[in-house]
Amino acid sequence: MLESVDLSLRMSKEEYKAQIEDLYIRIGELQRKAWKMNIPIIIVFEGWHASGMDSIINRCMLAFNPMGLRFHVIVKPTEEESKKPKFWRFWQKIPAYGKIAIFERSWYSRSIIESFDKRSRYTELDYYVKEISKFERQLTDDGYLLMKFFMHVSQEEQAKRLKLYEKKGIPISVVSEELDYENEYKRYFTLVDEMIQKTHSSHSPWTIVEAENLNYATIKTLSTILVTMESYINSRLKNNISLLVSKSIADFIPSSNGLLNADLSLMIEDERYEREKDLYQKILGELQYELFREKRPLMVVFEGWDAAGKGGNIRRIAEKLDPRLYKVEPIGVPNDYEKSHHYLWRFYRRVPDAGHIAIFDRSWYGRVLVERVENLCQEERWQQAYEEINEFEETLTDFGTIIVKFWLHIDKEEQLRRFQDRESIPEKQWKITPDDWRNREKWDDYLKALDEMLLKTDTKYAPWTVVESNDKRYSRIKTLSTLVGAIEKHLR
Amino acid sequence: MLESVDLSLRMSKEEYKAQIEDLYIRIGELQRKAWKMNIPIIIVFEGWHASGMDSIINRCMLAFNPMGLRFHVIVKPTEEESKKPKFWRFWQKIPAYGKIAIFERSWYSRSIIESFDKRSRYTELDYYVKEISKFERQLTDDGYLLMKFFMHVSQEEQAKRLKLYEKKGIPISVVSEELDYENEYKRYFTLVDEMIQKTHSSHSPWTIVEAENLNYATIKTLSTILVTMESYINSRLKNNISLLVSKSIADFIPSSNGLLNADLSLMIEDERYEREKDLYQKILGELQYELFREKRPLMVVFEGWDAAGKGGNIRRIAEKLDPRLYKVEPIGVPNDYEKSHHYLWRFYRRVPDAGHIAIFDRSWYGRVLVERVENLCQEERWQQAYEEINEFEETLTDFGTIIVKFWLHIDKEEQLRRFQDRESIPEKQWKITPDDWRNREKWDDYLKALDEMLLKTDTKYAPWTVVESNDKRYSRIKTLSTLVGAIEKHLR
Repeated sequence: MLESVDLSLRMSKEEYKAQIEDLYIRIGELQRKAWKMNIPIIIVFEGWHASGMDSIINRCMLAFNPMGLRFHVIVKPTEEESKKPKFWRFWQKIPAYGKIAIFERSWYSRSIIESFDKRSRYTELDYYVKEISKFERQLTDDGYLLMKFFMHVSQEEQAKRLKLYEKKGIPISVVSEELDYENEYKRYFTLVDEMIQKTHSSHSPWTIVEAENLNYATIKTLSTILVTMESYINSRLKNNISLLVSKSIADFIPSSNGLLNADLSLMIEDERYEREKDLYQKILGELQYELFREKRPLMVVFEGWDAAGKGGNIRRIAEKLDPRLYKVEPIGVPNDYEKSHHYLWRFYRRVPDAGHIAIFDRSWYGRVLVERVENLCQEERWQQAYEEINEFEETLTDFGTIIVKFWLHIDKEEQLRRFQDRESIPEKQWKITPDDWRNREKWDDYLKALDEMLLKTDTKYAPWTVVESNDKRYSRIKTLSTLVGAIEKHLR
Repeated sequence: MLESVDLSLRMSKEEYKAQIEDLYIRIGELQRKAWKMNIPIIIVFEGWHASGMDSIINRCMLAFNPMGLRFHVIVKPTEEESKKPKFWRFWQKIPAYGKIAIFERSWYSRSIIESFDKRSRYTELDYYVKEISKFERQLTDDGYLLMKFFMHVSQEEQAKRLKLYEKKGIPISVVSEELDYENEYKRYFTLVDEMIQKTHSSHSPWTIVEAENLNYATIKTLSTILVTMESYINSRLKNNISLLVSKSIADFIPSSNGLLNADLSLMIEDERYEREKDLYQKILGELQYELFREKRPLMVVFEGWDAAGKGGNIRRIAEKLDPRLYKVEPIGVPNDYEKSHHYLWRFYRRVPDAGHIAIFDRSWYGRVLVERVENLCQEERWQQAYEEINEFEETLTDFGTIIVKFWLHIDKEEQLRRFQDRESIPEKQWKITPDDWRNREKWDDYLKALDEMLLKTDTKYAPWTVVESNDKRYSRIKTLSTLVGAIEKHLR
């Protein structure tokens, strides 16, 4: 795509002045509209070093009210970011609904630099293309408007400018960054071109900007932003709030799986319980340091019926752990700030560092359980969530994360017994709320959702374990032993 | 304080078991009470390496519902944190109202290590003591409950344990951390002891815990937490929500200052305006790289009457800047998440990195302007804010930050003219809201607040400049030239 670009395009100062103020006013209006409609916007700037990107971006930014705008410069990952999966840092930076994020360099520069240098574990460009496609599709599926610009100059022009910068003492990079990109125009050219072609899609197309003339480049970029925002806003208005393409949703046929076969009569007697608990806790206490040494993150996910014993199970896991190495992440109703982002955002924020453990008391599966049953999100969105969740977990396991998922299973009678218990024992009363009783009435709806969840998200890389939990001791021992087994399997 | 401690104290396993569950239940209840009352709690754990702190903390954490709890391990600052004032990282971690934060090591370890190593710019322990006192007083003034524990073991016991750890392969530190602290018990002893004595105050006292026996140490710590929470909650209930000690507030007598003397007839003609604007923008364009090279952060604060021209002034400053080096921070009404923290918290989050520029469109001065005039916070709190703000700015300038503060001043007639303008020109209409008219009615209240603000927060390290702004061109040139002058003064 870069080969055929006419880099001789120019615009005079007069022409520029005649157009710029009008563009500013009209884009300002569109920003206010998008804000009211809760449309989040991401604008990505990529390009050669010395393409004048900084000046172009600065001129573009002045079109927007800074109140709704965040600007991110992407350079090599910080120490903190290196402990997380590659796309974690980009997830941190996605704008809230109605807001705008502008990126100077992005997941593209990182992918190109890392593919080129072969420093990363994934030497293939295709790995990045796949990750980028996932990431961008998940955002646009959620209603994000994504615009991508590549600032193009010729190698001769670049060389000329670099000399000028040097003379003037302007730093090419204001952060310590790999500069190969600058010195290796020719060798990068093919890679950049291929990357752009492979990630040019209908939902997030590229615009190549002829950047040898600053005025021309600014006006072209701003006009493209204007037209794209305008048409996106109009199509959203036409489609009545949601642009989501309605997929034909096949009715899900419940299948028999682990859940139905669960033998809830399983028990363990007291003495054996104490002995095995101590044993597994001791092993876990040692394995945590091994995980730490091997830099493997571990995510333990607890889902289950109300009163199935998630808290007690988590406590037995945590009891002998080193508090510096684990954290418990209780997941409740998202707060307003979390609600104003893609639903996976708050979970990306909580993924454990390399070598650390995160135990989730409820999780992202809320999307296909409570949010589905209580109609808290559109059907299209929870239908898409199965794939998004699988991709999320795949991204994490690709990074080396061990994911262990538990469904704590009890029957309806056992739940009733426990609810009544909680109501009658004073220091347990805080544990029971009217919500619990309401959820109980929807047992069958949950069962259906649960069945589909277990079937669609039980993957090789992140399998489910159904834990028979009518007997608390049995439940805890099964959890502990499964966890120990999973860690050992991954470490050897 | 450490000398006189009896380290022979022990507790048997039976005694421990008899007490622990009861403590868990009662602390759990107090946590729910504190949550409902919106009381934020900070628990700090300090102590010798190998004092068994990890196990004690883990046992203590199990007393709390993880939903309201965050645990922080403080080690040496990350790359990102090093670009910010020292206490920035601790401000990031203060809990929201109603929540609990537990620190394993804290501002104390950092201060001790850095005082000892003399690696930092401030070699004096007293500097840290002063910073700590500010920080802790600002929090407790805001209603935070602060508990501090020091886990004490003898040097002989420490040596014995370190050998055991080594044999078992348990890492002393799960993060790359200075280990001098471990090897230099004797040399640290005096420093630690002095630090504890100097920071032992009525609002945030220390508890020394004899930690040679794990059971004893856990029960002592938990009992102290229980009693402290109980008495804090009770006194809050007695004092009807607020514990704030009512200071005798001296009536403020308005004084004549720059504001009253401002000559609002000052103007600049068009041609000179263009010439000087270009000149100052060019100088600013060069100075930004000098700031960057010198690693000096710059904060530019804009306050002023509605329609005084803040946006236009900011745009003239930003126009020729490198977007990688500056950010505009528009400050509006805090969101719910921000509201549930100390009011300075959201500004700490926004301070610029070393070498970078942050331009604030409104700021922390909202506390003593709009929040005061509109009764959005208790009188005690905005009265305390003058000192807090001065301390905040001093902390930043101590770090090397250059702070330039502008009050854009127009008279009431000029404001009326601009409001009417905004109402009559279609593309300006979004700029005017009923709020603006309402604020205008309170002109005199604002004038009084403003007068007090200018008098009490005009410091040597962060002075105010009143900018005569009836003429927009004059205003912009004065802003630009003042800014250039201030930067140059600090750089030479």
